[in-house]
Amino acid sequence: MRALLLVCLSAGCLAQRPKPCSSPPLMTGSLSVSTQNEKLGAFAKYTYDALGQRIRLREFGSYDNKTFHLDVLLLYRKGVMYKISYRNHTCYKKRLNRDFHPLAIPKDASLVGQVVLGSSSGPGQGVLVNTWTGQLQMRNKTARYMSTVTEFGCVPVTTLFHSTRAGWMVTSFFNNVIGLSDPQQLIPPSFCKDAKLEKKEGEDPATFYSLF
Amino acid sequence: MRALLLVCLSAGCLAQRPKPCSSPPLMTGSLSVSTQNEKLGAFAKYTYDALGQRIRLREFGSYDNKTFHLDVLLLYRKGVMYKISYRNHTCYKKRLNRDFHPLAIPKDASLVGQVVLGSSSGPGQGVLVNTWTGQLQMRNKTARYMSTVTEFGCVPVTTLFHSTRAGWMVTSFFNNVIGLSDPQQLIPPSFCKDAKLEKKEGEDPATFYSLF
Repeated sequence: MRALLLVCLSAGCLAQRPKPCSSPPLMTGSLSVSTQNEKLGAFAKYTYDALGQRIRLREFGSYDNKTFHLDVLLLYRKGVMYKISYRNHTCYKKRLNRDFHPLAIPKDASLVGQVVLGSSSGPGQGVLVNTWTGQLQMRNKTARYMSTVTEFGCVPVTTLFHSTRAGWMVTSFFNNVIGLSDPQQLIPPSFCKDAKLEKKEGEDPATFYSLF
Repeated sequence: MRALLLVCLSAGCLAQRPKPCSSPPLMTGSLSVSTQNEKLGAFAKYTYDALGQRIRLREFGSYDNKTFHLDVLLLYRKGVMYKISYRNHTCYKKRLNRDFHPLAIPKDASLVGQVVLGSSSGPGQGVLVNTWTGQLQMRNKTARYMSTVTEFGCVPVTTLFHSTRAGWMVTSFFNNVIGLSDPQQLIPPSFCKDAKLEKKEGEDPATFYSLF
């Protein structure tokens, strides 16, 4: 990283103000989610494909002191999500809101600042990150967010959402790699073939956020 | 970092389990402190000298919705701390508990895990960190902690303390550099020369943690 910083300093790239950015379109990694009121604590492995608008989440955690396990495949282009259980070989198919939110810093975000996590004094000791803040419209409510991504690569590090119900919700990303380490994760397993679309009267299609 | 990781993989250093480590003895950087109950939020610049057992903290923040500013120099070998105000040219000298706690992962800490913050897919995109947990004796109470440091350099990234009073207290370190960027920060300013030691009957000497 030191070499990169030196190149940047001499080329003047750090003289430019950071700009809102989009994360790599294909990513695989892990994330943890927790809320300030300690009701929710979860850990997930994710596979993310912004090109095909597909997300796979294999999650376990606890909500209200009850543990849960969730394995979902979100296919935004088709407007469906699958709830998958390998143990029981069952698959539930539900409607999904088609609004795919790519991992990106919104264009109207404000820069909070640029810092080094760890240290820039030696190789491998730190990473340069930018923190952004703003407001998002979520289900007719505005929610404040604070989002940290790496300066090089726009890889997500932490996202905070503030809701009046649960206070701050912290999502930490880690072990992210660029690309799909297992593309098959984004294809419904064979036992999902016969799953019928569950439609409940008056129920809104699921969104990414309604999963948590 | 990629190069370092490759060297490590071929040399087998990642095959070894991470060990509790001490942070560099001389460091300069910034930190933020916040508590789960949102009572305390503070930002500080620190200068840290484990060789001379000296710490300087210039801090501002809010406690119970009241803003505060704090500029302290902790000289553990002498057992004194200075509360400094440059604006008023005043200086208060107080007793300080001589137990200097170096920035280090305690030897009996348990490894939670090793992850990459950001990504290891490209140079400058991430940093390899280890997270440790355990219990500390603080003022006759045991406190759980969770501490994250970089694998290379043992630079502090985040420390969480759990107290029954305030819930989780999160300290995030950033912009750390190895060395003292301004050694004079660790010497009392001239107007501190005549400061008299304040002794209050029955008052315990200050500790690092009683400052927060």
